[in-house]
Amino acid sequence: MSTQAVSDAALAAFADALGPDAVLSGDVSSYADPFAPGDAASYAPSAVVLPSNVEDVRAALAVANRFRVPLWTVSTGRNFAYGGAEPRVNGSVVLDLRRMKRIIEIDQTLGHALVEPGVTYYDLHRALGTPRRFWLDPPAAGWGSVIGNTLERGYGTTPYGDHAAQQCGMEVVLANGDIVRTGMGAMSASRDWQVFKSGFGPSYDGMFMQSNFGVVTKLGVWLMPAPEGYMICRYAFAREDDLERVVDTLRPLRMDGTIQSNAVIESAVRWAAGVSTRKDWYDGPGAMPDEAIDAMARKIGIGRWNLRFCLYGPLSLVKARRDIVHARFADIAGATLFEMPYRDASVEPEGGGDRAQVGIPNMEAFNLLNWRGGSGAHVDFSPICAPLGREAATQARMVRERAAQSGFDYYGGFTMGERAMHHIFAAIFDRDDPQQSRAAGTLIETLIREAGAAGYGQYRTHLAFMDLAAAQYDFNDRALMRLSETIKHALDPNGVLSPGKQGIWPAKRTSGGGAP
Amino acid sequence: MSTQAVSDAALAAFADALGPDAVLSGDVSSYADPFAPGDAASYAPSAVVLPSNVEDVRAALAVANRFRVPLWTVSTGRNFAYGGAEPRVNGSVVLDLRRMKRIIEIDQTLGHALVEPGVTYYDLHRALGTPRRFWLDPPAAGWGSVIGNTLERGYGTTPYGDHAAQQCGMEVVLANGDIVRTGMGAMSASRDWQVFKSGFGPSYDGMFMQSNFGVVTKLGVWLMPAPEGYMICRYAFAREDDLERVVDTLRPLRMDGTIQSNAVIESAVRWAAGVSTRKDWYDGPGAMPDEAIDAMARKIGIGRWNLRFCLYGPLSLVKARRDIVHARFADIAGATLFEMPYRDASVEPEGGGDRAQVGIPNMEAFNLLNWRGGSGAHVDFSPICAPLGREAATQARMVRERAAQSGFDYYGGFTMGERAMHHIFAAIFDRDDPQQSRAAGTLIETLIREAGAAGYGQYRTHLAFMDLAAAQYDFNDRALMRLSETIKHALDPNGVLSPGKQGIWPAKRTSGGGAP
Repeated sequence: MSTQAVSDAALAAFADALGPDAVLSGDVSSYADPFAPGDAASYAPSAVVLPSNVEDVRAALAVANRFRVPLWTVSTGRNFAYGGAEPRVNGSVVLDLRRMKRIIEIDQTLGHALVEPGVTYYDLHRALGTPRRFWLDPPAAGWGSVIGNTLERGYGTTPYGDHAAQQCGMEVVLANGDIVRTGMGAMSASRDWQVFKSGFGPSYDGMFMQSNFGVVTKLGVWLMPAPEGYMICRYAFAREDDLERVVDTLRPLRMDGTIQSNAVIESAVRWAAGVSTRKDWYDGPGAMPDEAIDAMARKIGIGRWNLRFCLYGPLSLVKARRDIVHARFADIAGATLFEMPYRDASVEPEGGGDRAQVGIPNMEAFNLLNWRGGSGAHVDFSPICAPLGREAATQARMVRERAAQSGFDYYGGFTMGERAMHHIFAAIFDRDDPQQSRAAGTLIETLIREAGAAGYGQYRTHLAFMDLAAAQYDFNDRALMRLSETIKHALDPNGVLSPGKQGIWPAKRTSGGGAP
Repeated sequence: MSTQAVSDAALAAFADALGPDAVLSGDVSSYADPFAPGDAASYAPSAVVLPSNVEDVRAALAVANRFRVPLWTVSTGRNFAYGGAEPRVNGSVVLDLRRMKRIIEIDQTLGHALVEPGVTYYDLHRALGTPRRFWLDPPAAGWGSVIGNTLERGYGTTPYGDHAAQQCGMEVVLANGDIVRTGMGAMSASRDWQVFKSGFGPSYDGMFMQSNFGVVTKLGVWLMPAPEGYMICRYAFAREDDLERVVDTLRPLRMDGTIQSNAVIESAVRWAAGVSTRKDWYDGPGAMPDEAIDAMARKIGIGRWNLRFCLYGPLSLVKARRDIVHARFADIAGATLFEMPYRDASVEPEGGGDRAQVGIPNMEAFNLLNWRGGSGAHVDFSPICAPLGREAATQARMVRERAAQSGFDYYGGFTMGERAMHHIFAAIFDRDDPQQSRAAGTLIETLIREAGAAGYGQYRTHLAFMDLAAAQYDFNDRALMRLSETIKHALDPNGVLSPGKQGIWPAKRTSGGGAP
């Protein structure tokens, strides 16, 4: 489908209101989905508006309402594999907040920061200074926006790995231009905006996550007090079906806080993709066969499943935790228990994954893009999994088998939070190969459908699958979606804000059209 | 003001829909505020409706909408000191959910429960069985509803003390009768309702807390895995101005999780009121003078400030934690460091406060009602306080001085969460003494006003002060309240649900009238 153009009058109005250098039109292909699976060109934006401050955001909203132009808000648009900066409605204007990049406050006593949408994990990390009194929790790719990642409920691997849970206080511009501050920020005289989340009365922060109800222009994040030291632990498990016992051993240790950090259980291919490429091990047709995976694992010194976590604190506590954890996992036959020495917090580990565990942003997760060669891309299947061995085994088997049928390796893993696991499978493909791209898209769609039928819901998904994933949340004839639509209509009656995001469509379709 | 009656036609319709035994009219004075400060009779309800299930709730909402009758929802209405079951609009019909008391599920592997509004902390504790694999976190008064306390953002003193944070999944009946389930509960096929909070898309749980947007009919709560053992620690600090160092020493220990539980810092009077009455120590006019407090503290063996917390886990971890904590507090001159021995989790401590710290509901907090004699009652001042010594000292001084001016002792304390403190001061009065009642009400109102001017907001308040407390959340000409009103109007256009709760009034006033 060709790009629908936004009217010249609307573009002129944006330029009038925000200044001509705040509007990009013509070739805005850099805002297209960089990892588009299949044929995603139908979502192309028509222009980009770049506000520099909250007043610019309000001005852009006023123009969008006047001309009924759909805006697609991105903080910096770097959530590759979920769609990047691309909108869901053809001809949308991208509201790109990357120029709003002030770190408004860092409190080095109470351990929190207040940032604008353009602030990346790298930016905030740098601003924390040396030696770091507080750490942030970086997601897999450190170049992303702190606000963007938090609003999408991204996560990392330190004790502060649940980004949505560590958020405290928001400033949101509503579609009508009203500026709302949540929690204690709603009290002008308060100094506790980043101290206490809820304030007084209903709390709206969760409502502005994964939503299209407003434009978040400031967000508070809690930072982790730098511990005295840390110990990174890694365990390798020899057999595919060890997964069940690994999960059931890990769950109580996470739930009672013996292991403080989000622990990661990675398949052999996922680990190997961080340190090698596929053709180092296998160059035949179809998914890597078991024998090739085993040979690769032996050679690299990893297991079919690999567990990584980090213990934090003074030596006495880390040592006591380590002894408890070690004793539990030593029971699993064929387990290899590696560990790094206890290190002072000021000493950085080498690898990217390990650096993330001590709060240092990096981009090593992108190594996976080289796995299959060509122009590497990936698209992800992201269901929630209960922290039960049998559930993890069921999901892993389901995905591995279905992936293999279309020639994809099981690049998968589970991140174990305190109460739930994120199961992430990446379909890695060469985006210059149309057949691989389409196959990746088809595979993810199939997995979402089959998982939904089995009772496994997505926590997040690529643009192309948002309606599908949302439709699976079907209780009482989609009552939750009716609630979302009611609120959408109340807050954004013209439907200008990110129509279609997470499957939420306004009652009135905006002029951009192109909706399914 | 006399009670405005609900119409006979409306009462008949409620009885028709729910059955005659589900409607109480005539004398419903047992639903009046049991601890009403000053003249609160203007809020009297006119009738009570008692649904037995979700269909009854829907039927009651239909009648309320048809007759434009204001409903005032309570789970069981036992939040004494904040208003009990009493409504904010004269002539309201109380929607009392106490008959809905099913414990729908307890998962003894994943550690969660799904309950209805009538389930109390006692009920759930009993249902957890013996030996307990999981603990709940009881609030000060164990007779309250789990849902009621959680929705009001109550808290306790174990590591699961932030009740709102430990909530996972809700079922809500909207004013139009639509039944919504949040999080993974929105997916019919999912088994993960109590596993993962957010689901897919916007999250609404926070919006249904301290609000009047729906009737919560089911709620999931996470339970704490029973630790191997525990050690209750108590420290006494001799001087009033030790508070500052106590807070600054405690903050980093709570923030990095060395102390896992919500720690409580109590004034001498608050401690003493648990174990004695005022006339044991002082019987003169005005607030207890310093010398009397000091003499009392010496006699009981407590400090001007008293810190209580509990360490949980296997002996090795508890011991390591205890050594760290002890060393830090030993630096404060005049500190007395008590501690109870490490105990196996199956061994119960004696006192009520101590029992709460091992997850056992009790009612000993009500001992305070005897402090002043007569028909004891209290009304609370409940500001959030940043966990900074100077802030705590400022708030404590402000309250102590103002309280003394009207003859009230400083029955106060701070509960230290990971990131914020709740400062609670109770004005204890004899409710048969009109002058004391009025003085208590006036004092709390004065404190809220003065605290607000100083930038300290309430996290919760009595019915009589909800409009005042809400008005202090004034950023951008009360933008947060405009958002609440917009959502209120969208979800409850007739304004039948708990009008005035937390200061949120519907656009159309319902027939009950009586609003300020």
